[in-house]
Amino acid sequence: MLQILSVIGDKWSILVIGQLRDGTLRFGELHRAVKGISQRMLTLTLRQLERDGLVTRTVHPSVPPRVDYALTELGTTLLDSVVALGHWATAHRQEITTHRRRYDAARRP
Amino acid sequence: MLQILSVIGDKWSILVIGQLRDGTLRFGELHRAVKGISQRMLTLTLRQLERDGLVTRTVHPSVPPRVDYALTELGTTLLDSVVALGHWATAHRQEITTHRRRYDAARRP
Repeated sequence: MLQILSVIGDKWSILVIGQLRDGTLRFGELHRAVKGISQRMLTLTLRQLERDGLVTRTVHPSVPPRVDYALTELGTTLLDSVVALGHWATAHRQEITTHRRRYDAARRP
Repeated sequence: MLQILSVIGDKWSILVIGQLRDGTLRFGELHRAVKGISQRMLTLTLRQLERDGLVTRTVHPSVPPRVDYALTELGTTLLDSVVALGHWATAHRQEITTHRRRYDAARRP
């Protein structure tokens, strides 16, 4: 359970899986879509998702080579929970930010 | 979005929130319930959840003092997605483990 959650309960994995909900994306497209992720972190995240059988990686022998990423059937079964988590985060962002400010202010020396 | 997911998209937060679904728990009960978490990591996780307004911390002036943790109303709204993610992880654990073995075997030198 813990090892599984290490991957799916990771902010980058959640954001990458969320971006792939509408279909195949290239590495560069994913990199632009997932704000704030470095190329290296995106590579590592995609490798983990591929290793877990959640994402496929397809290399097209063009010049330059094109690399496509897509959710597998297993990855798609995870989509509902991931999208729900993303919606929750968007809906409650302001509320959480307010809580954080209040918490930090109460503890300021 | 990213800052919010840093907290809720964290394996320990997910496990702690899941454990609090049935009501209040003491620190020691949570520590036993969340397998593999250290006392320090549990303390840090609970502090973050409290800061985000997802968990309340109640200190009872007994000897020794008793500290209770419970989900707030906001924390409860997160529960469905978190429980869904947990169920998914449990249901697909074997499948993912198989994928990992196959992936690693294919890349062994």
